[in-house]
Amino acid sequence: MKNILNRRKFLQYSGIAGSAALLTGKAFAKPYRPEKEHEIGLSKWELETPSLCLDLDIMEENLKKVHINLQGTGIGVRPHTKTHKCPALAKLQMEAGAVGVCTAKLAESQVMLENGISEVLMTGVNIGKGKIRKAMQLRKAHKGFIQAVDNKQNAQDLQDAAKEAGVVADVVVDLDVIRRSGVPTGLPALELAQLVDQLPNLSFKGILAYDGGAQHIKGFQKRKERTIQTFGPVSETYAMMKKSGLNMEIFSGAGTGTYNMMDDVPGFTDVQVGSYLFMDTQYMAIGSKTNESLYDDFDPALTVLATVINTNHPNRLITDSGAKALTINKPSGQVIGETGFNYNAGSDEYGTVTFESSNKTYKTGDILEVIVPHCDPVVNLYDRIYGIRNGKVAEILPILGRGQSR
Amino acid sequence: MKNILNRRKFLQYSGIAGSAALLTGKAFAKPYRPEKEHEIGLSKWELETPSLCLDLDIMEENLKKVHINLQGTGIGVRPHTKTHKCPALAKLQMEAGAVGVCTAKLAESQVMLENGISEVLMTGVNIGKGKIRKAMQLRKAHKGFIQAVDNKQNAQDLQDAAKEAGVVADVVVDLDVIRRSGVPTGLPALELAQLVDQLPNLSFKGILAYDGGAQHIKGFQKRKERTIQTFGPVSETYAMMKKSGLNMEIFSGAGTGTYNMMDDVPGFTDVQVGSYLFMDTQYMAIGSKTNESLYDDFDPALTVLATVINTNHPNRLITDSGAKALTINKPSGQVIGETGFNYNAGSDEYGTVTFESSNKTYKTGDILEVIVPHCDPVVNLYDRIYGIRNGKVAEILPILGRGQSR
Repeated sequence: MKNILNRRKFLQYSGIAGSAALLTGKAFAKPYRPEKEHEIGLSKWELETPSLCLDLDIMEENLKKVHINLQGTGIGVRPHTKTHKCPALAKLQMEAGAVGVCTAKLAESQVMLENGISEVLMTGVNIGKGKIRKAMQLRKAHKGFIQAVDNKQNAQDLQDAAKEAGVVADVVVDLDVIRRSGVPTGLPALELAQLVDQLPNLSFKGILAYDGGAQHIKGFQKRKERTIQTFGPVSETYAMMKKSGLNMEIFSGAGTGTYNMMDDVPGFTDVQVGSYLFMDTQYMAIGSKTNESLYDDFDPALTVLATVINTNHPNRLITDSGAKALTINKPSGQVIGETGFNYNAGSDEYGTVTFESSNKTYKTGDILEVIVPHCDPVVNLYDRIYGIRNGKVAEILPILGRGQSR
Repeated sequence: MKNILNRRKFLQYSGIAGSAALLTGKAFAKPYRPEKEHEIGLSKWELETPSLCLDLDIMEENLKKVHINLQGTGIGVRPHTKTHKCPALAKLQMEAGAVGVCTAKLAESQVMLENGISEVLMTGVNIGKGKIRKAMQLRKAHKGFIQAVDNKQNAQDLQDAAKEAGVVADVVVDLDVIRRSGVPTGLPALELAQLVDQLPNLSFKGILAYDGGAQHIKGFQKRKERTIQTFGPVSETYAMMKKSGLNMEIFSGAGTGTYNMMDDVPGFTDVQVGSYLFMDTQYMAIGSKTNESLYDDFDPALTVLATVINTNHPNRLITDSGAKALTINKPSGQVIGETGFNYNAGSDEYGTVTFESSNKTYKTGDILEVIVPHCDPVVNLYDRIYGIRNGKVAEILPILGRGQSR
């Protein structure tokens, strides 16, 4: 029988498993790439699904709004590109008046710097000799690259690599806010900043403090209270550093959920907003300053198109877009044009939509447009964003940083 | 001030946003690709993290075991490549005695067929004229491509496209088991099968029935009871079809959780196992026939390497591998060499490991090896799998189907 274990076949296969040429050679070098040029000008409803779509008009409004809303505060915008991983969008953010962009990882930084974005602040630390050396080589090629550091050994390692690369590298110290990354506030932070300042091949530029946990607290006032409380020790540390004569050029922090709460923080320079550009159901749920139930400072611009593939059961639609298209983040995706639809993307390949009533009768082949649950990890699943204008594909934006989590 | 809204800048930016050339042109065409050739021969502990690693010795044992465990049952193996999305691994599965492979999506099917895998059964339906036409063109180029169908209109559309392509296409009917995909069992399924059989450019080859929900039920006996119950109407439908004279060459279903429960199902031909090759913490938790607490028919072969980047707080390690490296599936990843470590990958960029006690004292730069929570969506985050033998990188396996969810 064909399927039963065959000793000779296994021996044969073992030989194959040992052969790098056969496994990684030309025979397996042909990825599937849809003919994207043909897609420019298509109606978005004609796109094969799942597709990641960006309403360019809404996105542009969001792009402006963050600057308008901060007008007069003296607080700048340093957008976090971990959200979109797309140099083309970073370019738009810079053109709109950003002071620079943030990146989370080294590979992301390289994507941005090598694709026309000159001002990049990497908010994560680089650990490991290989990454540290690469980071300083990247700094050598790109003067606008700023690297975060959060411990003394790492500062010393950066010093060695910067010396080897023949550069004086700009460095910011990341302060511990939520026990995730960063050096403890107070004396440890001051000492680290002073060490960085003294090391000959490093140049201290200021501090970072990001309260990731505060971003998704529901209720503006509650969110603000938490933010102020968290920033207490950070502000004290800032004052200590300032008093000690350190260069406090950068005092960066806050995200889309807290960008408009930093006015009272002395010395604060810029907000690391990311999701404001796209929005998602997670952010929509936290409420804004003027709207307790819906965070409407920015409008949802990013959606996934999903095709209905099965309508056999009442009050239930099956789509072709599951966890590999939308992630399993909560709250789940929101179907535009319907209220009360529950989109369950818990299955890898299928979406299951349940509802009590619907505005139309759905049939197989209908396309649903879904506001994404959490934009960062959803974008990270796709190779391209379809930029939509007047319902048609106007741009195809390559997500060059997709999967670059190193 | 640099960061305040500047009307002229926005006008300028608007012009840029409208320019496809600037957004998608050569300036943004340089993705970050690590120099992978240099990585062959490295110790796995030297790899930059996050890295997706596959222990080739363990994987080969799993590859054999599924055949060994099914020996004498007459049941074949038709591995589902949605798990690994990697033609090189599909090739090994075929060499080990698989009767063919399964794919979930059209784009995945194309990746497999165009990279040396000739026997591909696509278990999902293709909805939409574009996909249906592509599917039949794919069938024209590759005789071993079999397409699932679950409704009459879709069968008619396939017929039209097959006629246009000048082929007689092999088709299987997908039966509804868990209200996700498929035609209802009984008469509707029989009528659809008969329609497919009668359409001149389609050739009916049999049926599929996949109980996805049964795969992760804890306890072998409980899982088996559910499986038998689910398969009742499926078996009745099979008998009706058989009696009506249809060609029942294929009766395919079951996954890694239920592969060894199908002996008693008359006419059943093959199991669509996927995760058996890699294993993950979800499957390890369901228990096996002989071990209620650990499913040990197959051993975990797939891991993610994560670097400890912060050790400032007691009983807490921060790593560089969060949701973008491990997904947020539960149960969470399991750190090899430690018991009682809780790996929380809920943050996009960071992993947080908490524990009461540890076997060693960890410091920044240490590497953790983590058994993945759910292999399918984790693999879908990476471009390559590092094939490890004797602790060193022996192969780099391109995941050519990554992100191909169309």
